Amino acid sequence: MTDWRHDFIAVDWGTTNRRAYAVSKGGIVGDGLEDDLGVTSVKPGAFAEAVAAIRARLGDAPMLLAGMVGSSRGWVETAYVAAPAGLGALAAALHHVEPGIAIVPGVCVTGARHDIMRGEEVQALGAVAAGLIPAEACICHPGTHSKWIEMRAGEIAGFQTAMTGEIFALLKHHSILAPQLTAQAAPGPAFLSGVDTALEGRPLLDALFEVRSRIVLGALAGPDAASYTSGLLIGADVLSHVKPGDRISLLGRPELCALYAAALDRAGCSSETTDGAEAFVAGMSAIGDLL
Amino acid sequence: MTDWRHDFIAVDWGTTNRRAYAVSKGGIVGDGLEDDLGVTSVKPGAFAEAVAAIRARLGDAPMLLAGMVGSSRGWVETAYVAAPAGLGALAAALHHVEPGIAIVPGVCVTGARHDIMRGEEVQALGAVAAGLIPAEACICHPGTHSKWIEMRAGEIAGFQTAMTGEIFALLKHHSILAPQLTAQAAPGPAFLSGVDTALEGRPLLDALFEVRSRIVLGALAGPDAASYTSGLLIGADVLSHVKPGDRISLLGRPELCALYAAALDRAGCSSETTDGAEAFVAGMSAIGDLL
Repeated sequence: MTDWRHDFIAVDWGTTNRRAYAVSKGGIVGDGLEDDLGVTSVKPGAFAEAVAAIRARLGDAPMLLAGMVGSSRGWVETAYVAAPAGLGALAAALHHVEPGIAIVPGVCVTGARHDIMRGEEVQALGAVAAGLIPAEACICHPGTHSKWIEMRAGEIAGFQTAMTGEIFALLKHHSILAPQLTAQAAPGPAFLSGVDTALEGRPLLDALFEVRSRIVLGALAGPDAASYTSGLLIGADVLSHVKPGDRISLLGRPELCALYAAALDRAGCSSETTDGAEAFVAGMSAIGDLL
Repeated sequence: MTDWRHDFIAVDWGTTNRRAYAVSKGGIVGDGLEDDLGVTSVKPGAFAEAVAAIRARLGDAPMLLAGMVGSSRGWVETAYVAAPAGLGALAAALHHVEPGIAIVPGVCVTGARHDIMRGEEVQALGAVAAGLIPAEACICHPGTHSKWIEMRAGEIAGFQTAMTGEIFALLKHHSILAPQLTAQAAPGPAFLSGVDTALEGRPLLDALFEVRSRIVLGALAGPDAASYTSGLLIGADVLSHVKPGDRISLLGRPELCALYAAALDRAGCSSETTDGAEAFVAGMSAIGDLL
């Protein structure tokens, strides 16, 4: 039997990026590894090789993988555990690819609504297990697909995904606005102006075209367009998922959480940010302890 | 002086497509020309050559051009006439590129909101001038950027643009949904289901991600995804711009108008469709008569 409780390698393997950590007795050892070899960069059939390369860097230890590596685009398509779901349910549904390598399942919502996540569940449950986020909380995990996760008694009670980050990326790279969306979005006045426009309830499809109209008519400076557009999208995301007075636990990459924190403040909400990497390792260690 | 009243060539020159018509005494002569040589397909400096090629096909007549050919990406960047604007204002602000070739200005809205159009104004004003649409009307012109135009006393009193068609194209060609959005959208049950979801007020960013969740969890058949997603976007567009009981004049390409007509019906509105090509020629002829 593989002993997952002490030394192992935890991999957060997403669509476009991956992060791997050598974990020993629940703590990170060394620098780990972060690169852009997400699942779409790995050829079908080449995952065993990719995993061997990680072990060559971080040590010959058991490996726990989470994220899109368990999707139809990944190594093996693994199940989704239905919410409500806690660490125990994830550990019980682990998919053992081969001795010493296992993939954590995703979590889904079915019924009147349908929703799926892969990877964020480890961070959310890990953050609670490590005491970084309360057991009763509303978590916002920003990203390509932002997740609004309702935590009850330390479990994922339900969640809602929004296409916020992907729509921004599509606009930035492929739309009529692309030539103007070259700057990095930052939580300054242009961003907050976009947030405010969204919070007023301006229809998103109208507000997005108005970015172009405002640039053409001289009412928006080109360098401000990326931050303003980001503000429109994040503002619309926030407006759909909070009410004034809510307390939101932000979880994820600090620079993205900073944008959401600024938008949440504008919407009358308070927020605290937890680094996703720390929460991920805590979650994977907790799953290892349950095996 | 060029005589624009009788024989001339009218060109609706958009971003990705163009249509040219030989016009004689207000009526279309012959088949005209329709191709995908929109302004982004014409190299800077090559417009005179492109225009000569049109004349070689349709006859050596004066030419009236409208649409993105008058934008910063076109031949010459021409002005926007501020709404309210009628045919007289367009004719007065015509930009004469050279003897016998003129570009119709666009129309803009400035003030609390900013908005711009190039090309649709000729269709809207032409439809009213030809008696195809009443002088007091709410026109919806679907397209890459859909236009909701308020006509008062036969003039464009104001308008609102939405990025509906472009967002659909981005999703279809570049998003995580792209592999599933290959079918042609049609106004059947899947489309109407998307419209209904949007009309219920479901946040658009949430509903778009749910397309993927529903496919992955088996709640939406892949071939239905394009129609359902089109329904979500057009439903959101309709929800933002009408109220039950409104009467909408649809103007544009018949296949796109059919999708909007179905969505408007679902929203409790009535609609009538006018072909954009006929309205365009009527508008250009009316401008020619004013010169």
